[in-house]
Amino acid sequence: MGNADYTYPSTNVEHAHEVAIPPPQPFFKSLKASMKETFFPDDPLQQFKNQPPVAKFKLGLQYFLPILEWGPRYTFQFLKADLISGITIASLAIPQGISYAKLANLPPILGLYSSFVPPLVYAMMGSSRDLAVGTVAVASLLTASMLGNEVNANENPTLYLHLAFTATFFAGVFQASLGILRLGFIVDFLSHATIVGFMAGAATVVCLQQLKGILGLDHFTHGTDLVSVMRSVFSQTHKWRWESAVLGFCFLFYLLLARFFSKRRPKLFWISAMAPLTSVILGSVLVYLTHAEKHGVQVIGELKKGLNPLSIVDLSFGTPYLSTIIKTGIITGVIALAEGIAVGRSFAMYKNYQIDGNKEMIAFGMMNIAGSFTSCYLTTGPFSRSAVNFNAGCKTAVSNIVMALAVMITLLFLTPLFHYTPLVVLSSIIIAAMLGLIDYEAAIHLWQVDKFDFVVCMSAYMGVVFGSVEIGLVIAVALSLLRILLFVARPRTLVLGNIPDSMIYRSVDQYPNANNVPGILILEIDAPMYFANSSYLRERISRWIDEEEDKLKSSGEISLQYVIFDMGAVGNIDTSGISMLEEVKKSTDRRGLKMVLANPGGEVMKKLNKSRLIELIGQEWIYLTVGEAVGACNYMLHTCKPKPKPVTTSESETWGDNV
Amino acid sequence: MGNADYTYPSTNVEHAHEVAIPPPQPFFKSLKASMKETFFPDDPLQQFKNQPPVAKFKLGLQYFLPILEWGPRYTFQFLKADLISGITIASLAIPQGISYAKLANLPPILGLYSSFVPPLVYAMMGSSRDLAVGTVAVASLLTASMLGNEVNANENPTLYLHLAFTATFFAGVFQASLGILRLGFIVDFLSHATIVGFMAGAATVVCLQQLKGILGLDHFTHGTDLVSVMRSVFSQTHKWRWESAVLGFCFLFYLLLARFFSKRRPKLFWISAMAPLTSVILGSVLVYLTHAEKHGVQVIGELKKGLNPLSIVDLSFGTPYLSTIIKTGIITGVIALAEGIAVGRSFAMYKNYQIDGNKEMIAFGMMNIAGSFTSCYLTTGPFSRSAVNFNAGCKTAVSNIVMALAVMITLLFLTPLFHYTPLVVLSSIIIAAMLGLIDYEAAIHLWQVDKFDFVVCMSAYMGVVFGSVEIGLVIAVALSLLRILLFVARPRTLVLGNIPDSMIYRSVDQYPNANNVPGILILEIDAPMYFANSSYLRERISRWIDEEEDKLKSSGEISLQYVIFDMGAVGNIDTSGISMLEEVKKSTDRRGLKMVLANPGGEVMKKLNKSRLIELIGQEWIYLTVGEAVGACNYMLHTCKPKPKPVTTSESETWGDNV
Repeated sequence: MGNADYTYPSTNVEHAHEVAIPPPQPFFKSLKASMKETFFPDDPLQQFKNQPPVAKFKLGLQYFLPILEWGPRYTFQFLKADLISGITIASLAIPQGISYAKLANLPPILGLYSSFVPPLVYAMMGSSRDLAVGTVAVASLLTASMLGNEVNANENPTLYLHLAFTATFFAGVFQASLGILRLGFIVDFLSHATIVGFMAGAATVVCLQQLKGILGLDHFTHGTDLVSVMRSVFSQTHKWRWESAVLGFCFLFYLLLARFFSKRRPKLFWISAMAPLTSVILGSVLVYLTHAEKHGVQVIGELKKGLNPLSIVDLSFGTPYLSTIIKTGIITGVIALAEGIAVGRSFAMYKNYQIDGNKEMIAFGMMNIAGSFTSCYLTTGPFSRSAVNFNAGCKTAVSNIVMALAVMITLLFLTPLFHYTPLVVLSSIIIAAMLGLIDYEAAIHLWQVDKFDFVVCMSAYMGVVFGSVEIGLVIAVALSLLRILLFVARPRTLVLGNIPDSMIYRSVDQYPNANNVPGILILEIDAPMYFANSSYLRERISRWIDEEEDKLKSSGEISLQYVIFDMGAVGNIDTSGISMLEEVKKSTDRRGLKMVLANPGGEVMKKLNKSRLIELIGQEWIYLTVGEAVGACNYMLHTCKPKPKPVTTSESETWGDNV
Repeated sequence: MGNADYTYPSTNVEHAHEVAIPPPQPFFKSLKASMKETFFPDDPLQQFKNQPPVAKFKLGLQYFLPILEWGPRYTFQFLKADLISGITIASLAIPQGISYAKLANLPPILGLYSSFVPPLVYAMMGSSRDLAVGTVAVASLLTASMLGNEVNANENPTLYLHLAFTATFFAGVFQASLGILRLGFIVDFLSHATIVGFMAGAATVVCLQQLKGILGLDHFTHGTDLVSVMRSVFSQTHKWRWESAVLGFCFLFYLLLARFFSKRRPKLFWISAMAPLTSVILGSVLVYLTHAEKHGVQVIGELKKGLNPLSIVDLSFGTPYLSTIIKTGIITGVIALAEGIAVGRSFAMYKNYQIDGNKEMIAFGMMNIAGSFTSCYLTTGPFSRSAVNFNAGCKTAVSNIVMALAVMITLLFLTPLFHYTPLVVLSSIIIAAMLGLIDYEAAIHLWQVDKFDFVVCMSAYMGVVFGSVEIGLVIAVALSLLRILLFVARPRTLVLGNIPDSMIYRSVDQYPNANNVPGILILEIDAPMYFANSSYLRERISRWIDEEEDKLKSSGEISLQYVIFDMGAVGNIDTSGISMLEEVKKSTDRRGLKMVLANPGGEVMKKLNKSRLIELIGQEWIYLTVGEAVGACNYMLHTCKPKPKPVTTSESETWGDNV
């Protein structure tokens, strides 16, 4: 029945399996292999192999411009779907673009500019079919707070604008370099927990900022933290404008209601998608009819007609603010990348196609470089807009082109219509979008599954809300890294016992029915043996031995003779780890114990061999499995060395002379 | 024969062993346990358990002042041994102390002060029996270069001196806090490779600095890097003094010769130990007789008689240099700790007694705090002096007391004798000591055993020699941490095969004779599944499956049906890892493959259970060993699903209807 070709492990000690030392590899070959695995795990050059030069050139072009690859296969069916989704996301992009530009303290028109050029670039270079390009709230807020520390946007708008373009340029360069240098994995260090906490914190902070618009306040704090905002809001209660607040809450209620319906019935996604635009239209008409702009309701005012002016000459590399700009560019660039790539990946997962992270980074980078030349600020693939795009049934990146064209028409002809749009509507749109980013369910899930991840998430949240966006991010990343370092610095060591009726040995904590083997201590070490844990492991192992000896002494059982280390989970060892093992070997020798290794992996065997530790331990004391090691130890224990208890008296007398 | 109580694993699929979920633990209990393991792995409070209050007080005193513990057992035999070793190390301490104080740009007398008070403190508080306390070259150089950046020691000697005392105070506070807060493991992050490279680099830099003394130059660069020093030396070739150089090389030759003999015959250790003092005496007599001080040979000059003056009022906490002082204190404090603790540990290993790292840190800290109050600068347990102490046969820390008394006598009566000691002799003493720190054999060993450790070592060396001491240290620590992060970020995934004649499955790379199982892909993952590797693992696993399917397709064998993950080496999993597994499960489902887990550990099972992923995978698809998992898969493969090749036609027809 298929099992016939399985034979059972031999228990005869003489037939124990030998542990292999992996065949030696030339240094440069193994260096090349590990470099490739670190930087090119996805092997983008594989398809170029064994191709004629012309095909190579074509493939290379298609690699950088995926539109050349899928373009020829584009059909009319696709176009219909992309047209609908493109117009849908445009209706979302226009009000959101204006709102987020206000959030970044930039002229509102920049939000429209940023929904025109970057989507066109992404449509040609991006490999996601569902991503909708646009500005995002968090990056906008970060731009405002980081650049705002140096230059006041109200007092010096031109300088501020130029700094924003330059920061966008650096963000693009940084993103593209990450992709080109194959360093995309840096983004992986923003863990899911970090992003959940960070996004929720940023959303909270963005909502708090909207109190300015909702309450119609003229003066507002430049700080983003909860304390500053609350102090600013409650120190000027007499300036609150009820007209503005009422209007704001009405629209907020409308937007949330629309989202609620769309969530319950995904087919009604367009209700939610259209809600911002209808709010803007309704609000503008209302203000126009009631002349509310003269009664404390602030409006956008004049928007310039026409397409993006060139801004390449505005990039300022010689300013004294260069270091701030570069810092802003890098931080906003990484945040934008993290969001864009996560969004692209999730939808690709869903539709079962592959996204190349490094290629996406190049696309994002080029899109932002191009954007910085044409009066756009930082763009990425926002989750909300991409989800609408996906729900509207987009097929390819052509939906981005459709959106760009719709925005172009708006820029050319429709900007005057936004003159009377009340700012409070924009605030409502931002708040509605932000509330969706506070994913408390994910936080609860983190608490249930992994307490440490919850701590990371909450520190990111608290850091952002009470400190600043950067502080939250730094704390969360530091904690996440600390977790990895602690995993290695304080590896778990487990005592193994025998699972009844088997030759399997597992942790006695996990398997309460596992039995200790008399006279033998079996320890499993659960991390690589590196410098960071070698002192700890040395002390911990000696403590395990002490405890075991004490226990055996008090119970009067057979004394400890063998210590077996299960090395199965020791992925690697460095020179500090080898010295540690050497010291453990010496100290077990002094105690009269035998040190035995079971199942060392390839890397470990290689290093043991090179350092000659293998000779010190003795090749015959290294076994393939814990079971075989125990078998051998038991054999020795019961045949060669007579011990008072388990062996009968006559036997012990017989063997006594040979000891 | 002892093997009788071993039965063989059952191959019957129905009897496969179940994987246990560890019994749930209350949150605070597990938090407490993991906190204890992180900060109190050595459990210093254990001995206090179940003791009456008086005994507790006594034990507590003995904990902080180990002299109370071993003092009463002190014998006359011990005293004889300690007397000899104490006088031997004093003869080394006096010239070295003066030399290193010069290196730190401090008055030479401070070197003697620092060999008086700190050894007395350490003798009471320290737990090493072999450590000899004193100043070290690297910390002296670091003090000079870090404080020298702010204050010129020649122009403003008093301020510089006060800053040095304050830095020593902060170093002491930092060291003691590390010990009290149980953060001693921070020192473990300085790996062996880092220390080898760093020490060699620092020794090179210190030797380069001695060119000033050897060549008798008056003006010298403040930089420590090779380029600055070489430029400084060769730009003033006309000022080189041959008298000084000749004298220097003669003494250097004498010192190295003495060391050479001592190394060949350890019994002759005293030749090497006495050589610096005889050099000083010889040099002084020579200068006195020839009046060489008037012919370009610089001498120490007047040394103040008398014991350490109090310096507690000189500590300056209100200076504008506070941040530099604190930085200097922390960096020199860590370096000094790393050396002192490593030295203490090695000799304790050798004599088979235990050293408590955290307790040692408190002792070092208190010694430096006391030192900063009494005109001493940073001290630790230098390797060279401790080795001499050990070779001279010291028994307890009393040898430090003897050394302190000898230095006291020197301070009280003998300082005028050093008036004519030529600086060039001090330079020779430093160079001779430093050459011993360049451990090229260790570097060769690193290259042979572990290339990455060699890279870390060389970067530390290069960073120190061409940059600065801090740069070298930062690069080396960063690289070491990067290695840990890369271990987790780019975990190895191995394809396992069946070892012939067994139910054991091991990596086919390590065991070339291991056989693939048709229709089943077995992957071992060698690191915890954390956020840092979840995207990589997702892509890598899907690539393994692709490759395996391609291989099977081209060979026309049975198609892939099962993917087994050996989770034995996956020590932990976080929420990102769980999402990744979930996605892998979904994608294998879509490909029509079955995902099977083998041997998940306790932590992993807990998280799988809490996240309900266990239900998605199916408890019946989780096996205790790879062997059992393969057995079960094979059973299904050959009985339930008829495949063209391996099953006979009649069987496949018989079972065909049941599918």
